[in-house]
Amino acid sequence: MNDSFVTIAEQMRTADTILLFTHINMDGDALGSSVALCRALRDLGKTCYILLEDEISDNLKFLDKDYCTWDPEIMKDPDLCVCLDCGEEGRFPKRAEKFREGKVKICIDHHRTSDPICDYNHIDPEASATGELVYKLIRCLDVPIDKEIGEALFAAITTDTGNFQYTNTTAETHRIAAELYDAGIDGNYVSIQIYERIRIERLRLTTRILDTLQLFGDGKVAITYVNQEMLDETGAGMDEAEGIVATLRSIDGVQISAILKEKNPGEIKVSMRAKEQGDVAMIAKEFAGGGHKKAAGFTLHCSMEEAVTLVSEKAMENLANGY
Amino acid sequence: MNDSFVTIAEQMRTADTILLFTHINMDGDALGSSVALCRALRDLGKTCYILLEDEISDNLKFLDKDYCTWDPEIMKDPDLCVCLDCGEEGRFPKRAEKFREGKVKICIDHHRTSDPICDYNHIDPEASATGELVYKLIRCLDVPIDKEIGEALFAAITTDTGNFQYTNTTAETHRIAAELYDAGIDGNYVSIQIYERIRIERLRLTTRILDTLQLFGDGKVAITYVNQEMLDETGAGMDEAEGIVATLRSIDGVQISAILKEKNPGEIKVSMRAKEQGDVAMIAKEFAGGGHKKAAGFTLHCSMEEAVTLVSEKAMENLANGY
Repeated sequence: MNDSFVTIAEQMRTADTILLFTHINMDGDALGSSVALCRALRDLGKTCYILLEDEISDNLKFLDKDYCTWDPEIMKDPDLCVCLDCGEEGRFPKRAEKFREGKVKICIDHHRTSDPICDYNHIDPEASATGELVYKLIRCLDVPIDKEIGEALFAAITTDTGNFQYTNTTAETHRIAAELYDAGIDGNYVSIQIYERIRIERLRLTTRILDTLQLFGDGKVAITYVNQEMLDETGAGMDEAEGIVATLRSIDGVQISAILKEKNPGEIKVSMRAKEQGDVAMIAKEFAGGGHKKAAGFTLHCSMEEAVTLVSEKAMENLANGY
Repeated sequence: MNDSFVTIAEQMRTADTILLFTHINMDGDALGSSVALCRALRDLGKTCYILLEDEISDNLKFLDKDYCTWDPEIMKDPDLCVCLDCGEEGRFPKRAEKFREGKVKICIDHHRTSDPICDYNHIDPEASATGELVYKLIRCLDVPIDKEIGEALFAAITTDTGNFQYTNTTAETHRIAAELYDAGIDGNYVSIQIYERIRIERLRLTTRILDTLQLFGDGKVAITYVNQEMLDETGAGMDEAEGIVATLRSIDGVQISAILKEKNPGEIKVSMRAKEQGDVAMIAKEFAGGGHKKAAGFTLHCSMEEAVTLVSEKAMENLANGY
C-alpha cells in the first residue's frame, strides 16, 4: 500500500537534513529526478545533497549544479534518507550503510520489482518515470517549478519514455511535460545535452558492430557481436555497445535481435530484444538469465561462432513456436 | 491575416465534395494530418479523398485506410480543394491543375515560407506541425477524435517535432498529445510503424557512409560522403542517406556536420547542419544554395576529394569567424 505524496511531503517538511540516493549507472531519470527533488528541498530551506558512489556520465553532468557529493560524511545521521528510482540496497551497495543511518527512510520509485522496504514508500509501476512521481511530490511540497527543476524533470521523463515513444507514455506524461514547458524549460537544450554528446569512439564501435550483422530465418532474426579486439581498435568501452540491439530491432522484418558481447575469452553476454513477435525471456530462462518478454539477457560459455549459431537457432525456434 | 478555424470549418460544413492535397515526398506530418482531416470530413458525411502523385513510403502506409487516391477523375470540380502542410503549387506540381478546379480553395500549413494564395488560409509558423492545426480544425468541426484520427495526428506531430525534442515543441504540443492519448491512441504502435521499419539496405549504407567519417578543426567539423559505388554495393537509394548528417551532429564536440552526396560524376550535393555554434546558411549562400542557420544545402561541381577539402575549410572558417 503506497503512502500518499501528502504524507511524504509532510515528512520532508518536518526534516532539516535530507540525503538523497539513487542507483548506480545513473540514467537521466535517476539523476534528473534526484536533482529536481534536491533543488525543491533546498528551496524549502532544507540541507540536502545527493550522495553518489559512481561517476556521472558526461551527457548528464549539466544537471548537477552542486547537488551531488561523493562524501558520506557531508551529513551525520540525516533526518531523512530518500532512495529514488530504486528500491533495494543492491542498487546503491557502497552507500547502503549510510542509507540506514537515516532516522526516517523513504522510497520513491516506478520499478515493478521494488519492494516497500522503507518507512514510507511510493512505488508506482504505472508512472513512466520516477520524474513523474517527483513532479507530483514537488506539487505537494508547494514549491514552484522553475526552469531548473523543470529541465531536470524533463530529462528524467524524456529518458525513461524513449522521447515519449514507449508504451509507458500516457496522457498524464504529456500533461506534466506541458506544465514543464509552462515553467519555461528549454526541452531542446536538454535533449542536445543528453543525446548529442556521442563519443566518436562510440560511433566508430557502432559501425564496426553493424559490420558483423547477420540475418537468419528469412530476415526475422538479426545478430551482431562485439569482441575485445573491436574495443581495442576503436578505443570504445563495452558499455558503449548499449543501444545497438534496439537499432537492430528497428530493421524492417526483424522480430528478434541480439548482440553478443565477449566479456572474456569464452564468456559471452547475450542481450536480446523482441518486436511484435517473440518472447526473449523464454530463451533467457533456458540459460539461467533474466528479463522480460521483449528485453532479456543471459551469459554463454563457448566461442563467438558457437554463440551466434546457438542464439540464432533459439530465436528461430522461439518464433516458429508462435511466441 | 489568417482565417479562423471557425470560418474554415464553416466552409467545410457547407461543402459536399472535398479533395485534399499535400506535398510530394510525404512525411508523417503531410500524410498524418491529411488522413486525420479526411476521416473527420467523412465522419461528417462528406465525399472526401486525398489526391496523391507519388508513392507512400512503406513506413507510412499504415495510415492510409482507403483515403488516398491517385486518380484525379475521382471527383469532378470539387466544392473544396484543401492543401495541407504546403502552400505553393510547386509542392504538388502534377496536381496543381486539379487543385485549381476547386470552387473554393483552402490552405492549412505551418511553413513560414508559404504565402496565403488560397481563398481561405491558415498558416501558422508557430505550430510544431500541420497536425496541430488539423487537431484544432477538427475540434471546430465538432467531430469526436477517435483512435484512428488520434493516431494519424500523433504520427504528424511526433514526426515534425522529432519525437517532442525539437525547439518547435511547446506546452500546447504536449497538451494536444495528452488529448490524443485520452482518445485511446497507441503511440508506441505508431512509433514502431514509422521508425522501426528501416530497410537492411539502408542500415548497410549507413555503416558504409560512417566509415568515410573525417573530423577537422579539433573535432568541431564532421564530414562524410556517399557515392554511386556505395549505393550499388548496398542496394540502397540516395534518399536512404537522409538523417546521417543529424547523427554526425550528435558527436560530442562536433559543431558543424556535412554529408556530400555524389548525384552524378562531378556533381555533389552538400547537406550541412550546425549545433550550438555555426551558421551553415552563410556557407550555402556563398554557393547559391539555401536553408536556414542550422540546416542548409547547396551543390558543388568538382571531385569528391576537392569537395571534402572545400567544405571542411568553409566550415572551419565559419566557426573561426564566431558564427
